[in-house]
Amino acid sequence: MSKLYKLAIIGFGNVGQGLAKILSDKHTLLNERFGVDIRIVAVCDLYKGSVADSDGLDPKMLLNSLEVEGNLKSLPAQHTTWNAQETIDNSGADILIELAYTDLKTGQPALSHVKQALNNGMHVSMTNKGPVALAFPELRDIAKKNNVQIGIEGTVMSGTPSLALGNEMLLAAGITKIQGILNGTTNYILGEMAAGLDYQVALTQAQALGYAEADPTGDVDGHDAAAKVVILGNLFMDLALTLADIDCSGISHISAADIAKASAQNKQWKLIGTVAKTATGFIASVKPEMVSKDHPLASILGATNAITYSTELLGDITLIGPGAGRLETGYAVIEDILSIHKNS
Amino acid sequence: MSKLYKLAIIGFGNVGQGLAKILSDKHTLLNERFGVDIRIVAVCDLYKGSVADSDGLDPKMLLNSLEVEGNLKSLPAQHTTWNAQETIDNSGADILIELAYTDLKTGQPALSHVKQALNNGMHVSMTNKGPVALAFPELRDIAKKNNVQIGIEGTVMSGTPSLALGNEMLLAAGITKIQGILNGTTNYILGEMAAGLDYQVALTQAQALGYAEADPTGDVDGHDAAAKVVILGNLFMDLALTLADIDCSGISHISAADIAKASAQNKQWKLIGTVAKTATGFIASVKPEMVSKDHPLASILGATNAITYSTELLGDITLIGPGAGRLETGYAVIEDILSIHKNS
Repeated sequence: MSKLYKLAIIGFGNVGQGLAKILSDKHTLLNERFGVDIRIVAVCDLYKGSVADSDGLDPKMLLNSLEVEGNLKSLPAQHTTWNAQETIDNSGADILIELAYTDLKTGQPALSHVKQALNNGMHVSMTNKGPVALAFPELRDIAKKNNVQIGIEGTVMSGTPSLALGNEMLLAAGITKIQGILNGTTNYILGEMAAGLDYQVALTQAQALGYAEADPTGDVDGHDAAAKVVILGNLFMDLALTLADIDCSGISHISAADIAKASAQNKQWKLIGTVAKTATGFIASVKPEMVSKDHPLASILGATNAITYSTELLGDITLIGPGAGRLETGYAVIEDILSIHKNS
Repeated sequence: MSKLYKLAIIGFGNVGQGLAKILSDKHTLLNERFGVDIRIVAVCDLYKGSVADSDGLDPKMLLNSLEVEGNLKSLPAQHTTWNAQETIDNSGADILIELAYTDLKTGQPALSHVKQALNNGMHVSMTNKGPVALAFPELRDIAKKNNVQIGIEGTVMSGTPSLALGNEMLLAAGITKIQGILNGTTNYILGEMAAGLDYQVALTQAQALGYAEADPTGDVDGHDAAAKVVILGNLFMDLALTLADIDCSGISHISAADIAKASAQNKQWKLIGTVAKTATGFIASVKPEMVSKDHPLASILGATNAITYSTELLGDITLIGPGAGRLETGYAVIEDILSIHKNS
């Protein structure tokens, strides 16, 4: 009774490995309870190697190979030389899982992969913000024309179902404003600064914990959060935002004096992303704001994220959950697949 | 292209009127954006009157009649004498909207209405906890046999999509524990007591604001929250709980000394409902607990509710939103209808 979904995974870093771990542990549950028989038929990673097998690849063997060999290159498989394009064209997959590294300027190479797959009649699930922040309206049109679906749950708050909540449950309530703590790295740093650390020390600590990249610019300057504001505005407010539309400032200029000022007012600095409809158009911003300590957002600590949808019929609805993580973002792909299954 | 859904509404109090208001304001939006053409074909209320018309009843006229006449008795309609049973059998509705008063002991008369509708091949949406807390497994079986659906979003946290979040998004993540502030009246009273009011004064104030009933026992003794714990445990943990399984204590015994003790520890009393799987079975309880003031649940004020799902793959996911209200609970019915539409 269950439906078979064959996955081609492009990019096998943390998220791909998290997905493989979930499929290894939960394949039977997903099959029996949700009616989806999810199999990996191809994995293509620029550095770790490429394997494809129409009979399916055992996720446990993929993870073992990475652990033992550091790559996928000695795994037995029908095809071991395909690049990303060949994988998309030849693997026979139903869904492209696009997890390759992309930059926020061009969205490449993910953007090309996604278009190729949609034009081939494949569904797509992706967790990279790049293609979505840059070209979602265009991708949605291509998907519609080919009668396939695009899942993007992992682009905002990892597997915390922030987009499904808005899309499937709150849209009919009339969403008028969206606000949130959409970047875990900066939230962690601001929390440590409130506890007395210097900005530079807090940043180094965030890097040591794996929250911040070696080049932390995208996080601390607010661009990561701004890309999420673009996605939210375009999905839920019929806007056509680009990154240039976001009034964006980061946290690197926040001083010890700023921290002391907030503390004296019983407040806490938070990097807040906002998109709202106004009488004359919209506002869309990312900036540090002082939040009263008895406000729910003030209690969002460490790398946790939160989003508040203000709606006409329900007032404010807030969702709190992880904003990153291997299994957490891998689960976002599972949510996309379940949504594709439900809407097919 | 849109699909017609004909509603028969039993019970036309606050929730029914909230639903009529939403349908009056949002009919076009729901039609164009979600593909559902929702029409009321019957309203039956023990005191306000009964009207049924296969051509549809204008929600604005229903509300006007209540405002001007205090009842529905002088509205023109094809049928004006049907009782609830006749309405369910003869109105030609696709969905029964069951909003009649029910008690938590027998679930009647709602339970009979719901069974009758399901056996007639109608979908059901209901916002009363009674039938769900008492007989959900049985109702689910009857629905399955008749190939129809039961929507119960409004039974927990009104229109805040707490059940859809668990059911459609978190079930696959492995729900291990659910905790929440599930009753707004007691949360309001505890907040006022923390601000210095005596229990009796805070309760009187809650009654004046319409939060608490004239007989507040169901709220302050924890039975309302306990019914919600039953629903959550049965929906998400494959349990077969009844109210007798809940270790339940309310807030009426909390003294000024208890309040002072929490305050001295920088904590806040909250009435917490919990259901969790354990090595030997389950725990299911409703009791006042002291929550640290920097915990997200401490910032839930007034009549707002919150629920935290602890999951294997995502850790803790918390949803905060209204727990009651005319439009808020009316919107829960809209969510049920959209879900019925999506899954049909």
